[in-house]
This record gives sequence, C-alpha cells and structure tokens, in this order.
Amino acid sequence: MTHTLVCFGELLLRLGAPDRELLLQSPRFDVHVGGAEANVAISLARLGHSVRMATVLPDNPLGDHALGELRRHGVDTRAVQRGDGRMGLYFLATGAGVRPSEVLYDRTGSAFARAAPDAIDWQHALDGADWLHLSGVTPALGSNGAKAAQRAADAARARGMQVVFDGNYRSRLWQAWDGDAPTILRGLLGCADLAFADHRDIAVVLGHEAHGNTPRERFVSAAAAAFAALPQLQRIASTVREQHSVDHHTLSALLCTRDGDLVTAPACTLTSIVDRIGGGDAFAAGVIHGLRRNMTDADSLHFGLAAACLKHSIPGDFNRVAEADVAAFVADGRLDVRR
Amino acid sequence: MTHTLVCFGELLLRLGAPDRELLLQSPRFDVHVGGAEANVAISLARLGHSVRMATVLPDNPLGDHALGELRRHGVDTRAVQRGDGRMGLYFLATGAGVRPSEVLYDRTGSAFARAAPDAIDWQHALDGADWLHLSGVTPALGSNGAKAAQRAADAARARGMQVVFDGNYRSRLWQAWDGDAPTILRGLLGCADLAFADHRDIAVVLGHEAHGNTPRERFVSAAAAAFAALPQLQRIASTVREQHSVDHHTLSALLCTRDGDLVTAPACTLTSIVDRIGGGDAFAAGVIHGLRRNMTDADSLHFGLAAACLKHSIPGDFNRVAEADVAAFVADGRLDVRR
Amino acid sequence: MTHTLVCFGELLLRLGAPDRELLLQSPRFDVHVGGAEANVAISLARLGHSVRMATVLPDNPLGDHALGELRRHGVDTRAVQRGDGRMGLYFLATGAGVRPSEVLYDRTGSAFARAAPDAIDWQHALDGADWLHLSGVTPALGSNGAKAAQRAADAARARGMQVVFDGNYRSRLWQAWDGDAPTILRGLLGCADLAFADHRDIAVVLGHEAHGNTPRERFVSAAAAAFAALPQLQRIASTVREQHSVDHHTLSALLCTRDGDLVTAPACTLTSIVDRIGGGDAFAAGVIHGLRRNMTDADSLHFGLAAACLKHSIPGDFNRVAEADVAAFVADGRLDVRR
Amino acid sequence: MTHTLVCFGELLLRLGAPDRELLLQSPRFDVHVGGAEANVAISLARLGHSVRMATVLPDNPLGDHALGELRRHGVDTRAVQRGDGRMGLYFLATGAGVRPSEVLYDRTGSAFARAAPDAIDWQHALDGADWLHLSGVTPALGSNGAKAAQRAADAARARGMQVVFDGNYRSRLWQAWDGDAPTILRGLLGCADLAFADHRDIAVVLGHEAHGNTPRERFVSAAAAAFAALPQLQRIASTVREQHSVDHHTLSALLCTRDGDLVTAPACTLTSIVDRIGGGDAFAAGVIHGLRRNMTDADSLHFGLAAACLKHSIPGDFNRVAEADVAAFVADGRLDVRR
Amino acid sequence: MTHTLVCFGELLLRLGAPDRELLLQSPRFDVHVGGAEANVAISLARLGHSVRMATVLPDNPLGDHALGELRRHGVDTRAVQRGDGRMGLYFLATGAGVRPSEVLYDRTGSAFARAAPDAIDWQHALDGADWLHLSGVTPALGSNGAKAAQRAADAARARGMQVVFDGNYRSRLWQAWDGDAPTILRGLLGCADLAFADHRDIAVVLGHEAHGNTPRERFVSAAAAAFAALPQLQRIASTVREQHSVDHHTLSALLCTRDGDLVTAPACTLTSIVDRIGGGDAFAAGVIHGLRRNMTDADSLHFGLAAACLKHSIPGDFNRVAEADVAAFVADGRLDVRR
Amino acid sequence: MTHTLVCFGELLLRLGAPDRELLLQSPRFDVHVGGAEANVAISLARLGHSVRMATVLPDNPLGDHALGELRRHGVDTRAVQRGDGRMGLYFLATGAGVRPSEVLYDRTGSAFARAAPDAIDWQHALDGADWLHLSGVTPALGSNGAKAAQRAADAARARGMQVVFDGNYRSRLWQAWDGDAPTILRGLLGCADLAFADHRDIAVVLGHEAHGNTPRERFVSAAAAAFAALPQLQRIASTVREQHSVDHHTLSALLCTRDGDLVTAPACTLTSIVDRIGGGDAFAAGVIHGLRRNMTDADSLHFGLAAACLKHSIPGDFNRVAEADVAAFVADGRLDVRR
Repeated sequence: MTHTLVCFGELLLRLGAPDRELLLQSPRFDVHVGGAEANVAISLARLGHSVRMATVLPDNPLGDHALGELRRHGVDTRAVQRGDGRMGLYFLATGAGVRPSEVLYDRTGSAFARAAPDAIDWQHALDGADWLHLSGVTPALGSNGAKAAQRAADAARARGMQVVFDGNYRSRLWQAWDGDAPTILRGLLGCADLAFADHRDIAVVLGHEAHGNTPRERFVSAAAAAFAALPQLQRIASTVREQHSVDHHTLSALLCTRDGDLVTAPACTLTSIVDRIGGGDAFAAGVIHGLRRNMTDADSLHFGLAAACLKHSIPGDFNRVAEADVAAFVADGRLDVRR
Repeated sequence: MTHTLVCFGELLLRLGAPDRELLLQSPRFDVHVGGAEANVAISLARLGHSVRMATVLPDNPLGDHALGELRRHGVDTRAVQRGDGRMGLYFLATGAGVRPSEVLYDRTGSAFARAAPDAIDWQHALDGADWLHLSGVTPALGSNGAKAAQRAADAARARGMQVVFDGNYRSRLWQAWDGDAPTILRGLLGCADLAFADHRDIAVVLGHEAHGNTPRERFVSAAAAAFAALPQLQRIASTVREQHSVDHHTLSALLCTRDGDLVTAPACTLTSIVDRIGGGDAFAAGVIHGLRRNMTDADSLHFGLAAACLKHSIPGDFNRVAEADVAAFVADGRLDVRR
Repeated sequence: MTHTLVCFGELLLRLGAPDRELLLQSPRFDVHVGGAEANVAISLARLGHSVRMATVLPDNPLGDHALGELRRHGVDTRAVQRGDGRMGLYFLATGAGVRPSEVLYDRTGSAFARAAPDAIDWQHALDGADWLHLSGVTPALGSNGAKAAQRAADAARARGMQVVFDGNYRSRLWQAWDGDAPTILRGLLGCADLAFADHRDIAVVLGHEAHGNTPRERFVSAAAAAFAALPQLQRIASTVREQHSVDHHTLSALLCTRDGDLVTAPACTLTSIVDRIGGGDAFAAGVIHGLRRNMTDADSLHFGLAAACLKHSIPGDFNRVAEADVAAFVADGRLDVRR
Repeated sequence: MTHTLVCFGELLLRLGAPDRELLLQSPRFDVHVGGAEANVAISLARLGHSVRMATVLPDNPLGDHALGELRRHGVDTRAVQRGDGRMGLYFLATGAGVRPSEVLYDRTGSAFARAAPDAIDWQHALDGADWLHLSGVTPALGSNGAKAAQRAADAARARGMQVVFDGNYRSRLWQAWDGDAPTILRGLLGCADLAFADHRDIAVVLGHEAHGNTPRERFVSAAAAAFAALPQLQRIASTVREQHSVDHHTLSALLCTRDGDLVTAPACTLTSIVDRIGGGDAFAAGVIHGLRRNMTDADSLHFGLAAACLKHSIPGDFNRVAEADVAAFVADGRLDVRR
Repeated sequence: MTHTLVCFGELLLRLGAPDRELLLQSPRFDVHVGGAEANVAISLARLGHSVRMATVLPDNPLGDHALGELRRHGVDTRAVQRGDGRMGLYFLATGAGVRPSEVLYDRTGSAFARAAPDAIDWQHALDGADWLHLSGVTPALGSNGAKAAQRAADAARARGMQVVFDGNYRSRLWQAWDGDAPTILRGLLGCADLAFADHRDIAVVLGHEAHGNTPRERFVSAAAAAFAALPQLQRIASTVREQHSVDHHTLSALLCTRDGDLVTAPACTLTSIVDRIGGGDAFAAGVIHGLRRNMTDADSLHFGLAAACLKHSIPGDFNRVAEADVAAFVADGRLDVRR
Repeated sequence: MTHTLVCFGELLLRLGAPDRELLLQSPRFDVHVGGAEANVAISLARLGHSVRMATVLPDNPLGDHALGELRRHGVDTRAVQRGDGRMGLYFLATGAGVRPSEVLYDRTGSAFARAAPDAIDWQHALDGADWLHLSGVTPALGSNGAKAAQRAADAARARGMQVVFDGNYRSRLWQAWDGDAPTILRGLLGCADLAFADHRDIAVVLGHEAHGNTPRERFVSAAAAAFAALPQLQRIASTVREQHSVDHHTLSALLCTRDGDLVTAPACTLTSIVDRIGGGDAFAAGVIHGLRRNMTDADSLHFGLAAACLKHSIPGDFNRVAEADVAAFVADGRLDVRR
C-alpha cells in the first residue's frame, strides 16, 4: 500500500483583522491555521487522497489546535513532532480595492524553525508513501530548515518516490539569515519531478533571466532552462495572475513538460475575491490531484486552475472544496444557488 | 372592506454561515426567517398594503419567532395556525465569485408539511380579502400541501378574488414524494389571474417546449401556450437573469398579457450582490404592488424589477424596502450617500 | 515653532448597522468616531504632521471616547473644550449595489452646537500654529457655529496663518435654522487661501451657475468666478466622482490656481468599496499634506487623490494610512499581498 | 369588549456596552428597546393580556424599530403617534461585582418629550380599554409630559377605568426643568387605584417621612399616609431589594390594601444576575396580571415577585416570560435543565 | 492490541442562544456538537485513551462537521456510518439565576434514528476493543435504536468486553413512541459491568421504589436491588446534585460495588456555572478513566467527580480537559491564574 | 515642574479566548493591551496623574496599537522607543468556577527583551519626573532587563526621586535564563521607598522564611526583615487574597511602615469576577495615588484596595476607573444602577 502523499513544512496560525479592517482597528483577531504545505495537504485530503503531514509543532494549546485542524480534515498526523519553541504566527490585514493585503510575519523562534534537521524520522514518516511535497518556504527559514528539506527530498528520492517542489520564493526570509538561496534551492529542485515555479523562481535558482514579452513566453523560456539544468524534472506549472484590483483578478495557468509540450488553461475572471491567501497552494493541490488520478496534463491543469479559482471565494488558508465542487465548476460553471 | 391580500405558504428559518464561510466553518449560524410566500407578504406589507399570512407553525419558540417577525413587519397573523411538527429549516452557505451558494433543506416533518389539507379555515382566512398569493413550493411539499393549495385557490376563486401563482418549481421536492407535478400545478395555475413563471415552469405544467433563441422569445412562446391552455390567466411575468459571477448579475424582466402585449423592463446590472435569496419574491411583490395600485403593466413591471434589484443589496430573505426607496431608484437611480 | 495645523469642527459618533444591514436589522451598532474636520486632523496626524483639534465635547463617556480617539492617533487635544449638551450622533446604513447608503443625523442639541461662539480661546488654540482648517459643516449648525467659524477664520487671518476651507455644503442643515448660507459662507471662503469646493458649492456662495458640459468645464468656470470674487483665494480643488454602483466608482481630481493653471489627476477605478464616508476629507488631507511638504500642485493633487482612493478601502471615517502607503500607491500601484 | 390595558409612556433605545465592558471599551453597542411603561406592556402581552401602547415615536428607522418590537410581542399599536424630534436613547454599562451599572440618558428633545399634551387622542386610545398604566417618568420629562399624563389619567377616570401608577421617581429629570414634583405627582397618584411605590416615592408626594426601622415598617407607615391622603387608592405594592453585590440581590415584596391588610412575598435570592433593568416593571406587570386574573392579593404579589425574579435572568429591558414560566417558578422552583 | 473503548450513540448539533439570551432573542445560534456517548468518547480521548465512535451520521455538511469534531479530538471514526436522514439538532437557551435552561429537541427523522438495527457492522466496529459504552438515550429513540443497542451489547458480551451503561432516562423520548422502557432497559443493563444510574433510573428498570431519606440512602437501596437482579453488574455510580440556583450547585458522587462497598466523593461547590450540559457524561468518562487506569474505586470516583466539576466551567457539551487538569484539581485545588 | 510619575516596563498584547472558552475553542481572540507597569501607568493617568511610560516597542502595527492605547488614556509617550524584535504576546483562557485561568506567555524575542540596557535615555525619560515605578517582571526577562531596571532605579535615586518597586516574582521567567534573582531583586528593592510585596517576594530576596500562622503575621514578619535589610525602604504593602472559586474571592490589604505601623483595609467580597488580571497593578496604582495626593497611609491603602476590587469587574488589563468611581465605592458602596 504505497499511495500516501506526505507534505513537509511549517504550520502557522493566521491572526486576521475582521471585516477588511486594518490590524487592531477592532480589538479582535479571527484565527485560521495555514502554511503552504499544510494547505496542500488539506486540499488533497478533502479531494479524497491519503495525505500525511510531517512537521514540528510546539507542545501547547496553539500547537494542539493546529494538530486538531489537520486531524479534522482527515490528514494523518503520525509524523507530527512536538518540539520546543513557539507557534509560528502571521498577522493579516486583508486589503480591498486599491489597498493591498498586508502580512506581518511573527515566526522567529518557532518550534519548526528551531527543530534539528533530523527532527523528523523519515523512515517512519515516509512509510507507505509514494509522493512527497515540499516548498521553498522551509529552506528559507534557516540552516536547519534547509538541511531538513534536503534530507526529506533525499529520503524520498532514495525510495523512488515522486517529489513535488513549490518555489514559493520569499526574499525577506532568505535575507534574514543570509542563506545561499540559489545553491540550496537548486539542491531541492534537482530532486523534483514536478515543480510549481514561475520565471522569477527559476531565475533565482539558475541565475538566468527569462526572455519574452508575455508571461507565457517568459514561462516557456524559464521552463526550457530548468529542464536543461535539472534532469529529474518532468513538469513545471504556474499560474499567471493579473490584478485589476485587490478584489478583481484574472487567473490562468501554464504547464510545460520535459518533452516540450505547453499546456494552457484559459483565463478565469475573479471578482469580489474573499481570500486570496492559499490560492497558489490550492492550484498545486489541484494539479497534483489530476496527476495522481491519471488525468491528462491538460485536465490536471484545468482542475488545478479551477481549484485555485474556487479557493479565492473561501475564507481562510485552506481550500475546503470537494472533488465534486471543482468538477462542477470545470464542467458547467453554473453559478446560481444550488438547492 | 375587501382590500387585503392573503399569502399562503410555509415559513422557514434560514441558518446561514456568516461572512461567506462554508457551513460550520465557524461554529455559528446567523438566522433569518424566510419562505417564498412570506417574503411576498412582508414586501407588500412594507410597501403599504394590508397583508395577511395563512400558514401553520409549530408551537415552540422557533414558531414564535417566525410569528413575531410577521407581526413586526405589520402582517396580519389571524390565519396562522399552530400545529404538531418541527419548524422547517434551511442551511445556507452564501457563495462568492465562482462558488455558488448552497442550500441544504431540512424541512421534512415540518408543522406545515404535516398539517391536514383543511388545517386553515379559508372562510375565516379569506375574510375581507381580495387577492390570494400562492406558489409552487406548497404543492411540492407533499399530498397535504397539494390539496391545501388547491383548496385555497378554489376558495379564492369562489369568492371572486384575484389569484396570483408563482411557479417556483423545485424538482427535488417533487421527486421526494413522487408527486404528479404537471396535473397538480395545472390545477393551481388554472385558477390564477396572474402568474410568475418562466418557460421552464410552463413546460412542466403544459408539457411543451418553448421555442426561441433568446429568453425573450422563449418567454413569449411559453406565454402564448399558457394563455391558450388556461382561460383564467391574464398576465404572466418573469425576470431574466444573467449571471457573470455569483456576485455580479444582470437582471431584466418581461410581462405578457392575454391580449398579446409584451412589456419589458430594461436590464439592470447588479454588482457586489449581498443576498440573492428572495429576489424573485421581491419581484413578484413589486409587480403585485403596481397592479394593486393601478399602475400600468409597464410601470408595474418596472417597479417589480427595481424592487428585485434592491433586494439583492439586503441581507436576509425579506425585501425591507419602502415604496419611496423603490420609487427613488426608478426615478433617478442616485447612488450617493443620502444625508 | 509655527508648524502646527489646527482643525476646528464637531466630532460625531457614527452608529452603523453591521454587514450591509439596514438600521437595526440586527440589534447592534458598530461605532466609529468621525466628523469632517476631525477626519482631516487624523489623516494629517497619521501622515506625520503636527495637528491640533479645536472642538467642544460633552463631559461624559461618549465625549471621553472621542477625545481618546484623537489622542490615540496623535492629535494634540489642548484646544478641546468640554461643554453642556449631548454627543452628536449619526446613524449609518451602508448601502450596496443599487441601494444607497443612508445617514440619519442625530446631532441636535450637541455640546458643539450649543457652545457659545467664544467657547474656544483662539489665542490659546492657535498658539504655534500656521494653518487652520475649517469646513462648511460648522456654520451650517446654527448661529453659534457660524459665528464661531468666522471668529476662528478671523483669528487665523490676523496671525497671518494659511486658511483652508472645505465647502461641504449640506442644505438640510441650513434649512433647519433658516441660516443665510451665501453670506455666511462667503465670509469664511473670503478668508481662505485654499478651498475644497465644486461648482455647486461655489454656486451657493456666489449665486451664479457654472457653465460647461463636463465636470471639468464646470469646475473651471466656477473657479474663475471664485478667484474673481475672493481675492485671498489661491487654490481650489475638488474630486470628480462617477458612481456606477454604490460599490463601484471612478474618482478623479481637479485643482485650479489663481494664475489660471488647471491641474488634473487621472481617474482611478474603485471597486468593492468598503466605506465611502470620509473620502472627501481624505482627499483634502492629502492635498494639504502635499502643499505643506512643498510638493508641486500636481503632486499634491495626485497624493490627495491617492489618499482618497485608499480611504474607500478602510472601514470607518478616518483614513488610517501612512505616508508610505499613499506613496507606494502613487509610485507603482502594486496590489498583491505584501509579505 | 372592555378588557384592554393601555400603557402610556416613552420608548427608548438602550445602547449597551457588550460583555460587562464600560461604554465604548469595544466599538460596539448592543441595542434593546425599553421604557418603563413599554416594559409593562410587553410583559402583560406575553402573559396573555390584550395590551395597547400609547406613545409618540419619531418617524425614522429608529422609531420604526421600536414600533416593530411592540408589534412583534403582540402589543396593539393603534395609539402610537409619530412626531417631530429624536428617538430617546440611553447608554448602559452593565456593572459587575462591586461596580454599579451606569446609565447615561440621552433623551432630551425626543419626539415624546416634544409632543404636545394633546398629541394622543384619548377618546381613540382608550377605546375598549378598562385599565390604564402610567408611571412617574412621563410627568418628570417636562411640562408637556406632566400635562399629558394628567390628561390620560383624567380620561381614564372619566371612563371608570382602573388606573395604575408606578412611582419611578427620578430626581435628576425633575431638576432638569424645575418641575413641581409633589403637586404634579399627587394629581396623578390621586387618580390611581393601584400604586407601585415605596416610602421614598410617597415621601416626595406627601412631604412626610415614613417611620420604622425596617423596610416593612417604613412601607406600612407610608402606605397608611397614602391611603389617608388619596381616597381613590386601593392598593400599594413595592419590592424590597437588598444588594449584596451588583450580581447578587435578595428580593422580596410587600402590598398594603386600603382596609389595612399587609401581604408579603418571601425573599428570593438572586445570584449571577444577568440584567437588572426592568425588574420593577416586571414586578408591576406580574401584580397587575394577578389582579386582572382575579387572583388573591397574596397570589398576585407572589406572581409579581416571581416575574421580577425571572426578569433578572433575561438580557434586555423586557420580561420575555410566559405565564407558564412564572407559574412553574412559583409552584416548584425546579432549576434543572428542562428537556 | 485490545485496549480501545467504543462508544455507540447519536451525535447532535446544539444550536444555542448566545449570552444567556432566550432562543432567537438575537438572530444567531452558537453551535456545538454533542451527544451523551460522544461526550464520553471525546472526554476519554482527551484523557489519553484510545477511543472509537460508532454512530450514523447524515451525508451532508452538518454530518461532516460532527465527524470532523470527533477526528479533531482524536477519536477513531472508522465505525461511523453515513445514512439517509437529517442531522439531529437541539436548541438550547442556557438559563441563569432562577431561570432554568431549556432544551428543544429537533431530532425526529435523524439519520441515526432512521438507521436499521444492523447499520453498524459490530464485527468491524469492535475490532481490537475491550470496552463498550452505551446509554439509555439510544434505546429511547425508537424500536431501531432499542434493537441496535441490544445488538451492540450482545456483541460486546460475546467478545468478553466490559460493558458500561449510562441510564440517562428521558421519559419524553420513550413516550413519543410508546416504547417498553423497563424491558428494553433491563436487557441492556443486564449486559453491563458498570452502570451510571441513580435510584430513579433503577426504579424505571426494576419497577421498585428506593427507600431512604437522603440521596445516599436511596442510592444504596437502589444499588442493592440492582445487584440482586442483575448478576453481571459489578459497580453502580452516580452524582448527587443539589441546585441552589441555575448557576450554583453542590455536586458529590457515590459508587456501590457488588460486594457492598459504598464509596463517596465529598461535595464540591460550583458557582458561576458556565455550562451544565455534559456534566454527567464528564463524570462517567472520569470514572471510566480511573477504572481503566487501575485506580481504586475511590480514586476513580474522585477523578470522575473532579472531571464533572471542571466540565461545568467549559462552554459546549465536551469536557475539554486533560488528565493533568483533573489531577491538579484533585491534588490541590489551586484556583489562581496559572502563569 | 517635577510631578510626573514614570513607569518602566514591557507592554504585551493579550490574546484572549472569548466567553470563558478555552484557547481556540472558537477561532477568535479578543485583544487587550497589558503589562504590569503599563497597567499602573494607565490607572494613574485615569486617576488624574501626569504619567509617562518608558518602554521599547516593535516598529510595526502591533507596537503602534500598544502606543496608541497609552496615548488614548493620556499617558505621555515621549520615552517610548521603537526597536527590533517582536511584540510580546500572551494568550489567556479565563477560567471559571473550579477551572483556573491559564496564561501562555509568548514574549521571547520581544523588542523590549532584546533592547540594550541603555536603550532608554534616562536623562530624557526622567526629565521633570518625581516618581519612578518598576516591577520584578523586567529584571526577570533576562540580563538586559535586569541591567536596564537597575539603571533606571539608579538614575531615579540620583535625582532624588521616589522609587516604587512591585515584586511580581515570576519563577518561570527567572528559570528560563538562570538569572540570580535574589541578588538582582535586592539591588532594585534596595532603591525603593515603597514596595509592593508579600512574604514570598521578600523570602526570594532576603532568603529568609516569614513566620506566622496568618497572612497578616507572615506579612508583618517579612516586612520587619525587609526594613532591617533595606534602609531606603519606607513602606511595604500587599493584598491578601482568599480564593473560594475562580470567580469568588475575598480581598483585603496590609501596609507596614518603617516605624512599625501596620495598617489594614477590611476584606471585600468579590463575586462574579469578570477579569482578575491586573488586580495587583490596580492596587499599586491606588496606593500610589493616595500617597501622591497626601492621603494618610490608611486612606491610601483603602483607596488601593477599592481600586483593586473595582478592577475585578472590568474586562482587560487596565483599571479604567476614575477617581470619583473609587471614592464613591469607598464612601458608600452603593451598588444600584446609577441613573
């Protein structure tokens, strides 16, 4: 039974200002659990996959809550460690109109960031698993994170598992500890069969600039460079986002394969966006869903884009949709009240 | 004194997830009272009409609340019976963007559905009344409902009252008890002077398909068939709704008369829709208002469409607008803060 | 040290229905502090200016709260008097879609309105100040207000201060006491170096109709008349607002100088508007900020328009943005999550 | 059909700080409708009586809300006038432990206070009524209120109705307009068959000090003086309240009859008090209920005390209990969950 | 590995009025998941036991939520079936002072009540389990429930498991379907090793009245009769509750063993009770915890009483305490802030 | 002008579970600003004193909020520095009945804790000040804090200011960095004229055990030792708290002077406690108020105890009472609604 997907990364609590207010305009925070890799884990669990989360949480009620949320959504938590340190937090003021959303990270000293590179027993954590999902957030957290991510990727490769890597490049995190992002990320991306990355992510790793006048041209150029440099890599996918206002985007998606096929998913207009956080993770989960379900690349990309679009309508970091919801949107896009 | 309009139908409690969340994403429900016919009753009461509600409510605090809401808005409750059974409920997750709203009905075993066909004493309930309003929801609830609705329509006809019938065809309700929808609905529609119905409603009743490439052509085709088959019927009206996203619709309206006139109300764009539930009931109430106030068909249709548009901006099932609000929107459409 | 700007006007409590509801649809009010001149004061304090508020508040917990809000935002409150009377209130039902927002004023008998014309000791209140900001709301409150505003303007002129006057014409307030608006407002506008006014405000004061087919032509025509009649006046500025729906506006801005220059700021589209109240005050504060920082007229107008646009995304009357927020919007308009 | 009880008095909106906070500690008010006489009206309506409210409300959404609350609870509103002026408000910070609740009245200039003494057409308002209920709040509001209350009492006496007068002496209101409280109140009390008053209320009216070392002795002394001075008066009743903390009271009740009987209701301990406002009105309504239902004086007093005790457990000004709730408490006082 | 405890029973959603209000006094419900047996399951899971829930839930978002809550707290859900029917609901108005809490059940037609007696595959559900917990609620739901409970008890007995039965006698449920409570309950109690029951529960089953003037004497008398009639039974335990007010109870506990020992736990005073629902289930879970951890009967009873006391301080049906919380309360009862 | 009191210490954000819930039982936190010394500062500012806060806050919206709260309450913020690091947080689950409140500190790495010992320019910060208030929390935060507190105390002593030291011993904080609490605290206590400390605080510093069977005897014994060891010390005060339940305390107070006088304030019973956090700080502020206003020691102690009692009724860390509120409680203790 080797059909479990393992996600490795940090969970955070989001403390958000209610009702489009600025932080502490009212003396209240609404709380959501998030984290790029946990978002993928929960999306996939809700889409019906067997998913396991590997992470380190503090041994306090905040860690208990994050753990409980994983369990609630059906994620296997046997590979969750409890460790010294804080719960990582982020504060969010959701924007509106012409005011962008603002994130204030407060994750220094978290149990995940402080965990030793061998905190997770990968023998145990990958038992019965066939896919591993990682993102560029973990190595950006510091030397521990960088080593831990590479250990995870190596362990998965050694087992012949599929490895997914989501770029998620955050320059501010890397600057905070002066990490050598290109070298570290290249090590991880080199293990990946499937990458979620745009031309900027690729540029960081390979140090070359993508050519082209359109997002599509730049993506194709970057993908070609990536396939050339990274022999393990089979597919690269990315969303293309155009932002007319904070609440009004156009979202499309691209996927390149090693043998040079470019697959595109047509643009979807998103108005009255409820919560944009986690949109990229929903996309990744949707594409992974398709591939694991043996859909074609094109259908997987469509499914991923549809999942990402639906995420924008749901409060919180998680994409709480079922497979039938995404399928219905892909199939007919009927928008009237379902009753 | 024969100037009261009587509405007959079930009241429900809506238990809604707050702030565009999915059901029970937060452990809280916001509560509204609704029900197609009660929505019409309350709209008309707020527009200044003498309105009476005939219904059956459970004898518990939930029924008390529904009754109190009717009274609060000035609806006459002398024809409200209390009976055995539950309060009918529906759970609502209001959608956003590309995610449709979802209704979960929980109305089985309600006091209204369990009430005997003669639970309402129509002699008493119609006393002093000149109009009766019914909808297709009541006969869909089961054999009791179907018989009760027909008794009401027959009593009204016998008194020479005007009868209004709003299609509101809900296939899931009919399937639940295997009811003979065409026969039952034809009986009711055959009593109506004024019907709110689109070509699909008519098709169910008359078993014929409307022709035409546009909503307008299909409506005209269906209306012709209806007038041919139903000699009592004088007017059919319907909205035409185009949904660009869950929060962004275009709404227009059509009305056909027995002598073949087609009246149209120009399309209105609705953005940032707050609550779409009850929009059709607001339209019906608005058209009825116009006709009872001896407006022309065109003005009545305009008034109905304007009322429906305003409803989309108001949380809850009821259209809590006054005549002056609708008139101002019809007259000038000024949108700036009123102070 | 003469670098303080003094604002003179009434503070109000806004009691607002939550979540786009009508007043008392739910039994709750959300409370914000507001008032045209206080909005300017707080905007400017947050933009880094030394600002003082001159006003009269009741000596009760409601007045304490308004005073505390001024202090919280760093406004100097040494010129705040406490007096007999109520706290002025206004009730707000924020509109949506095609339903306009509705304001119900409840400010009769307020401590500010009841204060004697000499309640503020202007010798003390203007100490160390170089700018005074007034608006047309204060003289509209009654004879006391009209006299008090003129005293303030005269005292500022006598000290050689810059005087700013924001039209804010409210016909309902003038009608309530039968005040001679043209004469009183001309006295105040005659003291102003900088005015915020559109052609309708100018028409009230000068009794002439502006010519032109576009807002721009009418503004230029009105400005020419104003400069001709009011020798002290150096600049007039105004926003131009086009309302597609209650939540969707296009906003641009115009500024004329005495020597005939017309400066324009290009239109900005505002969708999913959160709170339109205080938009004009945010504009005024932004333009004043630019002028006090020795920006060009064009940059000042741009800054003012950008500040006004951002205000539409923030709940409450105050524009809680920092200079960097406005500058970022002017510079690049990047809308994605800032993290 | 002369079995309706009419209450005459002002309705107020209570704007309360949530969760035992001080006013505006959080920027929110919870809203309740109240007013001494309306509280009695609603209590009695819920206890099954035919009740009519005579009052004057402003013609705005706040007045509409108060009117709607009366209707919701089944109070006949045919004698409600709409008039110029504000909605009377009061702000409430509910205390706890050793911190008393604080009321900030904001009722100056209300539509009720500004109404002419003949605003209510008593011929119409008392039609079909057999009891009138008034309180000392109305005459305390000013000369208009004093005259209006006397007109009401005179009209009721002229019709041979029973008149109930609840002392509710508020010295601050009388001082505000320098009203001659003893004379005015004596006029009203002179019309009453039943009075709710303690020895302090009687002292104000009759100008004599009650004797005695206990509340009971002082009440008997005052009652004797009242019966001597006021030949119409048949019964006086009062609660006796001992306050151990703001949330912990002991409540008992006394009633004297003209023929010298003293009836007592044994003390009830109230812990964890939820809302003390309206306790006296609930008592009055309970006693009136008993008398109108032809209970003995002792049973009426018991019923009134039980109703008052239950009120302390209910948020808001109204005593939202049914007759069965009070009867159950009187009968067995069982406190466990009812299921 | 036979160390899992299985609980069998219905889960319900509690829809509660907020802040001690009556039902629908504000248009909002706070939601909790509950159910006597699920409460025991979750208590034991939080106390560190391996617990499995056997139940039937509807296949809709309400059932999903209940399932997710079980998982969140670490309860094994492999024996949860999804079936046709509604989610069982109950509405709660939490009382205060002298006003009792009121429960309005709305569980007719639930998926659990409609499930066939063999809906649960007990071979699968009891796999690896050594204890089974049932209560008197399930057989009271109707013939299906009565049969299903007996099947569960028989299957457990056949496997040599320990069976726990909690009386939870609800006369209103039995009356609704005219069930033969004594016979059915005797069948279940006859399978039990451990029973939670007071003298009234025993009287229902055995049809004899307990003797004695105190709760203790009556409990001992009833226990003796039970041991005589039911040879399998080893222990009976019960709380003794004295209610001074709705928020102020005294709670003690008694346990009798087959060999005649009476163990008592000294009374604990509970003031400012937050939520009394689930107190008995918390007691049962605490006693079971002690017995499964091989504590003495006395220590188990103490632990159970302490757990029950703590439950009264926690909102919702579940006793969300850890073993350390109960142990600390038993050990020292220190009440000051833990920091 | 040397009449300002300076408080030095850290500000924290409290993130509290609402409505007596456990942490994250609902996904929401209510936010309050707190910190022992800031609580004293705000109490004294509200009591009418000139107060300045010296602290270090992060330069982000959370730090802005804390700063704004100081300003709102009228505390002078000129000595507030902004520094690198986080905002210190604490999570609070307020207990009830037999469940103690739980605090989860999350203050590691805060801007205050990371600030260099000379981060505050004491020359500037103490300008015009005559009193300095410190507590044992600051030195417990680490070596930086210990040095900074001593610098502050030395600077104040050098200026001949009065120094107040509140013990606030927190063993968990000292253990976290292995600080030499006795030596460090003795250095600070040695500078103090007035100390708030009980016999345990004194035992930590002087290493001797207090004698006596009652709190009073132990306090007298400890005070004698303190006066013997610390020649600067003039007064020691302490509350004596007896906890009957989490919501029901008895609070009294003791004060010893160097010349051997023992002053006592009689016990006050506190039921239905709303928020116990900050009670000790409210006491300290009340005693300081009395001494600075030249009350007798006995009156100062009474005032302090009264202030502390009132604090228990107010949500949040701050004692938001005015001098008149405390005086009224001391004078008559009238508990009825003030209107």
